[in-house]
Parts: sequence; structure tokens; C-alpha cells
Amino acid sequence: MSINVEPGKEEIEAFFKSLQDEICQALEQADGKSRFEEDLWQHHSGGGGRTRLIQQGNIIEKGGVNFSAVMGPASVDMKKQLKIENDADFFASGVSIVQHPQSPMVPIIHMNVRYFELSDGTYWFGGGIDLTPHYIDKKQAAWFHEELKKVCDQFDSSYYPKFKTQADDYFFIRHRDETRGIGGIFFDHLNEDTMSKSKSELFEFVKGVGSSFAKIYTHFMLENAELPFGEKEKEWQMIRRGRYVEFNLVWDRGTKFGLMTGGRTESILMSLPLQAQWHYNQQPEEDSKEAETLSLLKKGIDWV
Amino acid sequence: MSINVEPGKEEIEAFFKSLQDEICQALEQADGKSRFEEDLWQHHSGGGGRTRLIQQGNIIEKGGVNFSAVMGPASVDMKKQLKIENDADFFASGVSIVQHPQSPMVPIIHMNVRYFELSDGTYWFGGGIDLTPHYIDKKQAAWFHEELKKVCDQFDSSYYPKFKTQADDYFFIRHRDETRGIGGIFFDHLNEDTMSKSKSELFEFVKGVGSSFAKIYTHFMLENAELPFGEKEKEWQMIRRGRYVEFNLVWDRGTKFGLMTGGRTESILMSLPLQAQWHYNQQPEEDSKEAETLSLLKKGIDWV
Repeated sequence: MSINVEPGKEEIEAFFKSLQDEICQALEQADGKSRFEEDLWQHHSGGGGRTRLIQQGNIIEKGGVNFSAVMGPASVDMKKQLKIENDADFFASGVSIVQHPQSPMVPIIHMNVRYFELSDGTYWFGGGIDLTPHYIDKKQAAWFHEELKKVCDQFDSSYYPKFKTQADDYFFIRHRDETRGIGGIFFDHLNEDTMSKSKSELFEFVKGVGSSFAKIYTHFMLENAELPFGEKEKEWQMIRRGRYVEFNLVWDRGTKFGLMTGGRTESILMSLPLQAQWHYNQQPEEDSKEAETLSLLKKGIDWV
Repeated sequence: MSINVEPGKEEIEAFFKSLQDEICQALEQADGKSRFEEDLWQHHSGGGGRTRLIQQGNIIEKGGVNFSAVMGPASVDMKKQLKIENDADFFASGVSIVQHPQSPMVPIIHMNVRYFELSDGTYWFGGGIDLTPHYIDKKQAAWFHEELKKVCDQFDSSYYPKFKTQADDYFFIRHRDETRGIGGIFFDHLNEDTMSKSKSELFEFVKGVGSSFAKIYTHFMLENAELPFGEKEKEWQMIRRGRYVEFNLVWDRGTKFGLMTGGRTESILMSLPLQAQWHYNQQPEEDSKEAETLSLLKKGIDWV
């Protein structure tokens, strides 16, 4: 019997796989209409993924829940990105989620949890959750951040403030001087050296984050899907989705790295909405709900 | 009286300004309904621009014709981009155009002509025209390339083959392994050293390219706007526009450089369509018009 064995890649990969299953089931149940369809794919250097997409549901218009576990020799681009010189094999696994709802009253959500290791023994965990309401409801924003804080506080009280600030910085559309939404948590390069925690403890944290997703998002699905809206709200949703596209294609490091290094395009771009709009120099009316939301797309807001 | 005086920045800027006027007038006339609206803006370090947008026309749904002439000390980002170490002042002027038509039967077009100089005396011209038909008509594609070849051949018979190849390489959506459309011409860093032509000759070439735009695009507007189409063609247009967004936000050097160095976001992103769509893993039916177009989105096709 082994005691205190650190989690290996098989165990981590198995967790991500079951997390994908659990989340897809919870989303299908909350949606009540559409089911996920699955595409299996293989990576050129080894491993592959399960891309799952739900479309035209009662609540979700287009949503992806991707699992992947890929491996092989680190490419030139990857070595450059990682700032390593020697040849090495890599292993990368994770779950990546974006949900675009039908209704502008239901927020868009994103989550990603991932693990990376090299044959030289280096490894790290990364991930995050962030929420992009088309219309910001301050009470709901506070609830969302409290939920994330609860998850973080189970492991270390320094996590939430640190990872919340990192989310503000990461999910930021620089050319608009706007945050993508109300942020959340974002973390990267978590390992023994950067965090003074054991690998097991860090894995437990990542599990905690991943497992919180279904509860958090189904809450918004069920709470907001019945709220009334009209043409004006629908158009605003299309504009906010345009911003989402801008963030993902211009600034998101994962998307750019994936597209530039030959990742599976359709799995990476499942994060894009079914439909988006760009109106030249669109400005919301003063004192409108849209203007209020825009005024709250700022870094450093203490939602809790 | 001065003979053989090389064109200075004032003359070049004045040409670009009048080119903008001429093109806006021609497009308004062909459209027959909407007029351009103008936004004047100033650049933080000096100069500024005239952004002109036409919307909801008979033929054009959303189109921009931008003129700008900006100047000032080269920023850190710019110096890095230009690979220069010493401080220098820059001057950059040009006209930049993208037209998104209402009808999927009318192609999207892009043109850009520009001039850049540094206080150390270095300068260059750049630019290009490329056409993105939602449905490729081989005869029209040949006509488009012939027109460009005629413009080029007036100056040097080596221009068209060279700049056509460069357009194939530039307007390429690497993560889709698709060209953006049927290409056209693309050139950059034209000066005495790179081209063994005088500055006057190069300016004449750029003028020729710029002045060819109105004739070329109004031809397609008038020729194709009345062609019938239905829901299926409209959806395909939305999907092709999604690809246009992907190219502009992920690969277009001008867009990325502009957004990352504090350019005027609304002027840069006037290139995006009013509306675009992303369907997961959309594949056209075999032997359909859509499949034929997709099969022609390849580099190296000799359209002429």
C-alpha cells in the first residue's frame, strides 16, 4: 500500500475525464432539451481529445465542454514558449468550457482546468473560471465571487484575492479598456516551487475548482432563463458577444497558442458564439442598463 | 521650377486624402442610398484621421474608407517592430478600406495603400487589394486579377506575379488552411533600395493601385447586387464573414499592431462585418456551390 503518493498524470487525466462527464450531465439536465454531441480526435504527436458540443438547447444556444490529453516531443514553438532549450517530451491534459446561452439575461461562462508536465520532471497546474453577464446584476456578481472564494478558502485564504486579481488582469480587453466580464479566478504555473504546497494539495485545489462549475452555472441557468427580454437586449447580447470574440482571438493566450501551433481549430474555436455583431462606435444611452454594465467592466471591483 | 523633385510627405498625404474623397463618392453613387458619415480623430502623438463609414445601403451593409496621417516620436513598440535602436520621429499615412455588402452574391473587398517614413530618411510604401467572394465566380475572379495585372504592368511586368504571390501568402488563414478569398496583390517595404525604382516611380505605382479601386469594386456592386439568393446563401455569407473576422483578429499584422499599440480601435475594427456566425465544424455538402468555393480557397491558383 502506498501512502502519500503524489498524483501522476494518469490519475489527473482520469479526473479531468470524469469531470467532463459530470459537467455535461449537469448542463443537459438543467437545459432540459439538447444533448451534447461528441467528436473524438487524435493529436498528431500522441493522445487526443473528446470535444463535446451542445447546440440549440432551451437555455444554451452553443456550448462546448472539451477534454483533451495530448503528449509527444515538445515542438520548436512550444520550447520557445516554455523557454527551454533541451529536447523534452510533454504531457498536457485539461477540461475547457465556454457556454453561450440563448437569453441575454443568462451570463456567458468560461472555465478551464489543466495540467502540464515535461519529461524532465517539471509540471504545473493552471486554470480559471470567469463570468461574462450581458447585463451585470450586482447581487449575482457577489454570489458568483463568494462561491469562488469559498472554494479557494478551503485550501488557502491567500488564493482568492490573488487569483481574483490575476483574473482581472487576464480577462481584460486592452484595446477596449474593458474587462471581458466580472472576472473570477485565474491561476497558472502552480507547483511546489511557486506555491509551497505539495502536488497533492494543488491537485485537490484544481479538483475543487473544477467540481464547483456545475453548481455555479446551473444556478444562473435556472435563475435567469425565464427573465423577460426584447430586441434591445438581444442586440446588446450580440455586441457583447463581439467583444468576447475580440478577447478570444486577439488576447487569449491559450487560443492564440493553439491556433498558431496546429491545435484542433474546431475544438479551440468552439468558444466563439453562434452569432455576434459589430456596430461602428456603438455607445449605450446614458443611464441605461447597458451603460451601467459597461461602467462595471473594470478591474479591481470588490464584488464580495 | 523644380524638375524631378521626389514626392514629399505633404504630397503623398494630399493624394491619399483626395483618394478617400474620390472612392467615397464612387461608392455612394453605386450604392444609390446610403451616404458616408465621417468621424474626425486625433492621434495622441500628432496628426489624426478621417474615418468614414457607410451603413445599411442598398448594396453595402457596412463599409469603411479610412484616411489617416499620424506622426510623432517612434514608440518603444514601434522601434521594436522596426528593429531600430535610436530615437526617431515617424510619419505614417494611408487609406484603408473594407466593404461588407448586403448580398452574399457581392464580394467583400479590402484595399490599403500606405506610406511610412522615419526622420533618418528611411521610407517605404506598402499596400494591397484583395477580394473575398462568398461564392467564387471563376470568370469574375479572372477579371479581377486581370484588372490588377493591368495596373501593375503599366509600371513593371515583374510586379503582378510577385505581388500576387505575396497576397496569397499574406491573406491566408493558417489555422483553417484556407486563403481569405481569391487574393489579389500585396506589397510592402517598397523603396529605392528594395525595388531599384525612384521614389516618384513607386509613388506613381501606389497611386495607380489606389485609383483602380473604385472602378473594380463598383463593377462587382453593379454586376452582382441583383443576383437572387436565399436563406442558405445568407447563412454561408455569415460563416464566411466569421472567417474574415478570424483572419483580421488572429493574423492581420496591421490590425494586431494597431490594437496592441493604442491605435483608434473603432477605426481599426471597422473592418469587421455587422454580423458573423460560427457553426461548430460546419462542412458544405458535397458538390455544392459552397464546397466549390471552399475548394478554390487555395494559394497559387493562376486566375488570369
